[in-house]
Amino acid sequence: MLTLHDNLTSGNGYKCRLLLALLKIPYRRIEYDIDRQETRTQEFLTKVNPNGRIPVLELENGKRLAESNAIIWYLAEGTPYLPADRFARARALSWMCFEQYSHEPNIATVRYWITHKLPMTPERQAALPGKREQGYAALDVMERHLSSKDWFAGGQFSIADIALYAYTHVAGEGGFDLKPYPAVRAWLGRVADRPGHIPITQG
Amino acid sequence: MLTLHDNLTSGNGYKCRLLLALLKIPYRRIEYDIDRQETRTQEFLTKVNPNGRIPVLELENGKRLAESNAIIWYLAEGTPYLPADRFARARALSWMCFEQYSHEPNIATVRYWITHKLPMTPERQAALPGKREQGYAALDVMERHLSSKDWFAGGQFSIADIALYAYTHVAGEGGFDLKPYPAVRAWLGRVADRPGHIPITQG
Repeated sequence: MLTLHDNLTSGNGYKCRLLLALLKIPYRRIEYDIDRQETRTQEFLTKVNPNGRIPVLELENGKRLAESNAIIWYLAEGTPYLPADRFARARALSWMCFEQYSHEPNIATVRYWITHKLPMTPERQAALPGKREQGYAALDVMERHLSSKDWFAGGQFSIADIALYAYTHVAGEGGFDLKPYPAVRAWLGRVADRPGHIPITQG
Repeated sequence: MLTLHDNLTSGNGYKCRLLLALLKIPYRRIEYDIDRQETRTQEFLTKVNPNGRIPVLELENGKRLAESNAIIWYLAEGTPYLPADRFARARALSWMCFEQYSHEPNIATVRYWITHKLPMTPERQAALPGKREQGYAALDVMERHLSSKDWFAGGQFSIADIALYAYTHVAGEGGFDLKPYPAVRAWLGRVADRPGHIPITQG
């Protein structure tokens, strides 16, 4: 059976949990308390992920795979969640790279600071306006795309949608207002309506 | 013929140029002056990339693909630069996600500030110590991996190595000292020794 090293509040973990649920793949989940730095222990760094982060997917043969978007790519290969067309597949990956570079470090990071009640250090205080601006810029790019398309890649619901859904649907928890983004909100509804959908809180 | 929307100082652009050279694929290159915000003009945002960034690969049919790692994935599919084994392919992608999330925003960003002579604003000043720390943490993870392996994924030179090489080999330009990283330095040498290798300055 697959094992997912995980944290229930993590949108990155949720990408994996959501796809595993949609694919009806059974798995064992190990929860780490990230507030208590349980992913930075010597044991975790040695045995699970030297980069000190969840999620990590562990195969039955003990091999481990880090990085949420690599995990969902691995799980989606050969399924309808990864476009069969070469260019559409690359477009899916392009949106997933956008998510990790332009979206997650802004929207997810601010949500993390707030929901995990991290101290507002001078470094975070200085970074916040830029993260707000860049987070909204990422939402602008999504809104523009979704104003003429239902899904992010290949005209179908794919792991690109799952990757972007994870932190967009809880953007409000980080103080991002989705009201000016009607196309994004409609798309969030379409994702949530997929058969087999589970919420972020479900382990 | 393929068109690469590019900037010669960009390591992200270099990933594409290097793989195109290794694959001996001819292409046309369009240079943008990022200091003059040429990738943020209304025309660029409308016609090339709504996210305002290079590199962008444009196919002969006019379709466009943004995000360096998606571009090299697209180009590498079906070639020896993308592992044929499913798990090794996922591991390659995992390292490419690591590059975009844990490596590039620290090492490449500081290099960009310095080499493009950007003003050291209070926001950048506050972010610098964290970027130094996290940049070295990324190099630590790489050193640990390379101390027992020649390449990043699948036991072969792949696009994971190309993605990580791009900004590691110029980390010194951002003030990162690679002396304490002998395995990283040996790997940089192996990449540079590949037949068909080109330097970052070659368009």
